[in-house]
Amino acid sequence: MAVGLLPPQSLIPVAGVKLASVAAGIKKNGKHDVVLISLDAGSQCAATFTQNAFCAAPVVIAKQHLQTAMPRALLINAGNANAGTGKHGLASAQHSCELVAAALAIKTEEVLPFSTGVIGEKMPMDKLGAGIVQAAGELDKAGWMQAAQGIMTTDTIAKAVSVQCEIDGKTITLTGFAKGSGMICPNMATMLGYIFTDAVTDAIFLQSCLSEAVDESFNAITVDGDTSTHDAGILIATAKAGNQILTATHALAAEFNAALKKLCIQLAQAIVRDGEGATKFITINVNSAENIAEARQVAYTIAHSPLVKTALFASDPNWGRILAAVGRAGMQNLVIEGVDIYLDDVCIVKHGERAETYTEAQGQAVMHQAELSINVHLQRGSASATIWTTDLSHEYVRINAEYRS
Amino acid sequence: MAVGLLPPQSLIPVAGVKLASVAAGIKKNGKHDVVLISLDAGSQCAATFTQNAFCAAPVVIAKQHLQTAMPRALLINAGNANAGTGKHGLASAQHSCELVAAALAIKTEEVLPFSTGVIGEKMPMDKLGAGIVQAAGELDKAGWMQAAQGIMTTDTIAKAVSVQCEIDGKTITLTGFAKGSGMICPNMATMLGYIFTDAVTDAIFLQSCLSEAVDESFNAITVDGDTSTHDAGILIATAKAGNQILTATHALAAEFNAALKKLCIQLAQAIVRDGEGATKFITINVNSAENIAEARQVAYTIAHSPLVKTALFASDPNWGRILAAVGRAGMQNLVIEGVDIYLDDVCIVKHGERAETYTEAQGQAVMHQAELSINVHLQRGSASATIWTTDLSHEYVRINAEYRS
Repeated sequence: MAVGLLPPQSLIPVAGVKLASVAAGIKKNGKHDVVLISLDAGSQCAATFTQNAFCAAPVVIAKQHLQTAMPRALLINAGNANAGTGKHGLASAQHSCELVAAALAIKTEEVLPFSTGVIGEKMPMDKLGAGIVQAAGELDKAGWMQAAQGIMTTDTIAKAVSVQCEIDGKTITLTGFAKGSGMICPNMATMLGYIFTDAVTDAIFLQSCLSEAVDESFNAITVDGDTSTHDAGILIATAKAGNQILTATHALAAEFNAALKKLCIQLAQAIVRDGEGATKFITINVNSAENIAEARQVAYTIAHSPLVKTALFASDPNWGRILAAVGRAGMQNLVIEGVDIYLDDVCIVKHGERAETYTEAQGQAVMHQAELSINVHLQRGSASATIWTTDLSHEYVRINAEYRS
Repeated sequence: MAVGLLPPQSLIPVAGVKLASVAAGIKKNGKHDVVLISLDAGSQCAATFTQNAFCAAPVVIAKQHLQTAMPRALLINAGNANAGTGKHGLASAQHSCELVAAALAIKTEEVLPFSTGVIGEKMPMDKLGAGIVQAAGELDKAGWMQAAQGIMTTDTIAKAVSVQCEIDGKTITLTGFAKGSGMICPNMATMLGYIFTDAVTDAIFLQSCLSEAVDESFNAITVDGDTSTHDAGILIATAKAGNQILTATHALAAEFNAALKKLCIQLAQAIVRDGEGATKFITINVNSAENIAEARQVAYTIAHSPLVKTALFASDPNWGRILAAVGRAGMQNLVIEGVDIYLDDVCIVKHGERAETYTEAQGQAVMHQAELSINVHLQRGSASATIWTTDLSHEYVRINAEYRS
């Protein structure tokens, strides 16, 4: 029941990347659960990882490997997060890299491992190992859509986007895919996201582009406020496009940046649209805050309020709950009379109380839409923030109550 | 479906207090919605109020009145919170005090008003006014149970407790009642709670007793993390018991303190047991934290996690979700290997990973209970905190999606 989200139509392959997706039996439902991606030599890589103190074993290994080598392969499994698994989990993640290295004739530290799924269960290495061997034999320049599908867990729909821009007379392609549906709350990179481009870039520029784009996309979404232990965002540049090397001083650096941000926002929004049990796609804009941190804090307090979320599910313009959330967002010296709140362009709260012009029918009309915005004006400064979220439905409870059964 | 909570059996009247409860038509369902309480002259009063920046109109008026006079009457209505109602709301709250003052021949500032219910709708003053007049004619020393019922909103069961202790050879009675079921998260006093005692006390001692007791009871519960705009906790001492005046230096001050704390904890737990849609009553103990603030932060991060709450609803010992919540609770330099987690006395996480002795059957057995504890050991210091919470069920979503319909 993804909100306003269609399956990806077609993806533009990025030169220098091959992909395979197989069913190794890690997922109980028999769907694809092992994705292997090989990268031509000479690729650059930027990365962001979860900030949860309990980061999963593969996250630990991936960070170590990134410090010693540029990746030549990415291994992703769904169905088992390999988190909360201690030394055994670290050994499994390390061993899976060795298996990939052997299959592709590369070094172990040139492999980055990623896992998503249930926390705290031991990785079935026999199944994963067989999946790696099979996938290594099926690597294909055209395997993009299958890879996007292979990393799904509770996702109902694959999330993948291609964007192009022109730099130095060359067409630059960016193609990315992501998974995520629940346990979504930003804290660096709250999802698994893989983005590939054929651009020629330097490593520092690539990392700054990724960090900036993630901050305004994957770090601006929330489904349930739960930060996962195994999230990662990876940006690979294969350097095949023939452009002049992109650095911060390249005249068209902003073009690349904008294309990447556009792609990240589309993927991030897709995660929210497919949020567990989501029946609504909500944009929350907080304006005229003292600073960005405050604007985000107010936006997240609204987005995480179960009372606001259930009212959204019920299409009930219970603006008192939004107002109460703003009131407990922890702002010092909030002047209530300065607060205005709109649903889309309908003013519901003016000067801190119900707007005189407001009618329940107006609010209802906005609330009945599948996509709507909550716009808060604080009159405290000039900072603003936008985040995207979902409602809280019966279906969210059902999905998460039944997740392991 | 309150968890392990029976209706109050009998309440011990407190001398100097009369109560009445009537149906004034503010609630749409025709149930009692106006409670009036008169207090003999010479009573002392202590109070705590919501810290939500948008506090309701009656909270503003009550705070003003407390600064100029000791209360002689409490007026409580359910069905309409008179919050987010601006100047009109303030005028309504003030006018309701005038009506009580006229009916009881006391001063307006001797009346404290309280409202609970839907936010942002104008108070129907005609109905409230008629209710006040009727209630003033029905004040009764025995009206305790009716008053406890009259302040309910989504509560399924009345919450009221009597406790006695002996001081200076005199029996001291404390009787209190409270309402609250959703929008429950501590931020001073997240509920409406009224406690009455016949003890002779000084005002400063009374306030310190209330603040301390609230901190370990009403401020240690959460249902959904939403702080209401109109919460208040009131402690009245009518000075009828004949004891020596209670101050901090009275030899038996601790006796009174303990009795009050016991009463507050019982009321606070009753609110959680009757939490909206609750099917489980959960105690969360966080031990060996660096300080109390940290212990509480970890406890609340667990308690507010929708993923933990839905797992509790499903009786699913998905301890990975608990571990992930601990990991994102914002502790600096958390040593993962120091973390142990127990469900009741079953060790599920040892040294930061799944305990070797743990079996799913053990976890399941604990989870199937209606009452259970989650016990976290951080090995960071000597501070601890206990909070109480509920699971997140289909019923919570239903109740809050349908609240205004």
